[in-house]
Amino acid sequence: MSDELKRGLEGVLVAESELSHVDGEVGKLVYRGYDIEDLARGASYEEVLYLLWHGSLPTREELDAFAADLAAERAVDDDVLDTVRTLADADERPMAALRTATSMLSAYDDDADALGDDHPTETARRQGRRITAKVPTVLAAFERARQGEPPVSPDPDLSYAGNFLYMLTGTEPDAVSEETFDMALTLHADHGLNASTFTAMVIGSTLADVYSGVTGGIGALSGSLHGGANQDVMEVLHEIDDSSKDPISWVRDAREDGRRIPGFGHRVYKVKDPRAKILQEKLRDLSESSGDTKWLDYTTAIEEYLTDQGLLDKGIAPNVDFYSGSVYDTLGIPVDMYTPIFAMSRAGGWIAHMVEYQADNRLIRPRARYVGPESADFVPIDER
Amino acid sequence: MSDELKRGLEGVLVAESELSHVDGEVGKLVYRGYDIEDLARGASYEEVLYLLWHGSLPTREELDAFAADLAAERAVDDDVLDTVRTLADADERPMAALRTATSMLSAYDDDADALGDDHPTETARRQGRRITAKVPTVLAAFERARQGEPPVSPDPDLSYAGNFLYMLTGTEPDAVSEETFDMALTLHADHGLNASTFTAMVIGSTLADVYSGVTGGIGALSGSLHGGANQDVMEVLHEIDDSSKDPISWVRDAREDGRRIPGFGHRVYKVKDPRAKILQEKLRDLSESSGDTKWLDYTTAIEEYLTDQGLLDKGIAPNVDFYSGSVYDTLGIPVDMYTPIFAMSRAGGWIAHMVEYQADNRLIRPRARYVGPESADFVPIDER
Repeated sequence: MSDELKRGLEGVLVAESELSHVDGEVGKLVYRGYDIEDLARGASYEEVLYLLWHGSLPTREELDAFAADLAAERAVDDDVLDTVRTLADADERPMAALRTATSMLSAYDDDADALGDDHPTETARRQGRRITAKVPTVLAAFERARQGEPPVSPDPDLSYAGNFLYMLTGTEPDAVSEETFDMALTLHADHGLNASTFTAMVIGSTLADVYSGVTGGIGALSGSLHGGANQDVMEVLHEIDDSSKDPISWVRDAREDGRRIPGFGHRVYKVKDPRAKILQEKLRDLSESSGDTKWLDYTTAIEEYLTDQGLLDKGIAPNVDFYSGSVYDTLGIPVDMYTPIFAMSRAGGWIAHMVEYQADNRLIRPRARYVGPESADFVPIDER
Repeated sequence: MSDELKRGLEGVLVAESELSHVDGEVGKLVYRGYDIEDLARGASYEEVLYLLWHGSLPTREELDAFAADLAAERAVDDDVLDTVRTLADADERPMAALRTATSMLSAYDDDADALGDDHPTETARRQGRRITAKVPTVLAAFERARQGEPPVSPDPDLSYAGNFLYMLTGTEPDAVSEETFDMALTLHADHGLNASTFTAMVIGSTLADVYSGVTGGIGALSGSLHGGANQDVMEVLHEIDDSSKDPISWVRDAREDGRRIPGFGHRVYKVKDPRAKILQEKLRDLSESSGDTKWLDYTTAIEEYLTDQGLLDKGIAPNVDFYSGSVYDTLGIPVDMYTPIFAMSRAGGWIAHMVEYQADNRLIRPRARYVGPESADFVPIDER
């Protein structure tokens, strides 16, 4: 025991993990040793889930079985869809609706019990697979209910990414959109320990079910200090678009007014976030194929301007959020769905961390230093 | 930064807190300096909530206003009651149902947004008050729905404890039952940092709303390593009752078979848990007034026998769970509602810790030591 206060637990090592590693000095992110760039370009989100949950990249046969298992679990009970519609009618915020709907899914899983002391891994993986399969279904149904549209039933013949876009719009996405969205899912699947991943681990360390861990992770990600920055970037881009200024003048004026430009700077990365590079290229492909290069032009201009202003030299570089918003906007996804989509992807990482931690589990329970009164004399209320 | 792995964060100081302190060597628990025994006997649960949330025991005037505010918030939207009924029909586990229903409450709170950077305290307290007021309503409605009964509307003229028992049974409780239940709520309201309280703090540290924190806390408490021990004790007492043995022979045989007797031993208390003492006395009052002393006889006999066997000398003493089950059973509460009732009471502590932590907030984000491969060569799927 040490009497040193570890505020925010900064720098405290709570676990060993083989899942992902960020090298912020050189801008490198690996999942189990594989460079994020290789995975984003060469592997589907399903392959990445398999890698995170099972430890190695699947063979074709393993992937086919795994993806089929996932696809078979996409449908959700009508009761859940009813509640999702109710939440949309009540104007619930998307992250809160996702939290409630994800929690509710456990009622329709006969295998949803708390994990018990012995061999939690397989149970946790099964629960994790169901959650991962069903979260896109409830999220798309929520968005459609907000638009006054009925839900679109999942199509088991489509990929995880393609099926989500299909359930969102009712139309099968083109290959470029599907591939781009799949890539965005892979890029957001894991990122070492962060507050939502750690939340899922703390909950999992009580041997609670995976539904509890993912529900908690969604809650943590909903906080303004955690998820939500890609939404902020898009709101700034729209603000620029609605103003009479060009992007560079707008950014210059905003900075003179003391505003921080969202999407720049990261607690870990001191150079350009590798995920930002990949999404920027993808935004270029998408923009050039659609002919609408506005967000590409704006973001590129802002990045160049801020680089010229010396921000990169200070370790303040574009992060993943700077480009993901433009990519989602180009795919026709509403701004307030960005954080829920982040949650949908990151759920894969939360589940991986729960499974890994529970395999060598220890209840997570730090201390607080009591600084209240040692003793106080109780006085009955009518004598106070 | 230290490279020492802190498994389970045992002994790591994450925060300073004025809320509660456990001295396990002498068996003392205080809330803001007040001995738990004085509070349990002399203050209502509403007074204890005020103490935890606002820092001092209320005057009569402060308490009246606070309790009236709480009582006015007890009703929940019919949509939530519909979902609660759906969850009961689906045979959802009570803790999972409570997790979903609590999460859903935020849809009907216009003030449920994430807290923002400035002055989160008042918003968090308002959200916390609503959650605290409404959790008993959804929990009682769930239990009644399982019994095929319609919900009972809350009665704002009853105390927090009395109203819960009224909503559960449809009958106003007698004074002894109300007082006993109120006492049990006070005894469970806070207990330093534990996994569920820490979960609420981690979620709160992202400035997520209080609904997210309490929902996460319920998830953590549902784990078999955290909540649930009072349920285990009651199941053992029923098992003894159903056997042909007297309690002492049963316990002796069970221990010879290597079974652990639930309700004995605690990570912190090395002597008898002060909460157990109070509940044991209360069980005596209840049993003597009802004339049914079975659980009192069983628990007293078991405690005496295990003491004679030298368990107390080894620091293995009765904890709060050893007596709370018998008390709840005597009040007519079903066994699988014990952990949800624990959650209902502890929500007051979760909210207090969130409010306290957010007032001097720092995002909680420890590290994991990456022990996976440094780099791995990516091979496309059809070449694996």
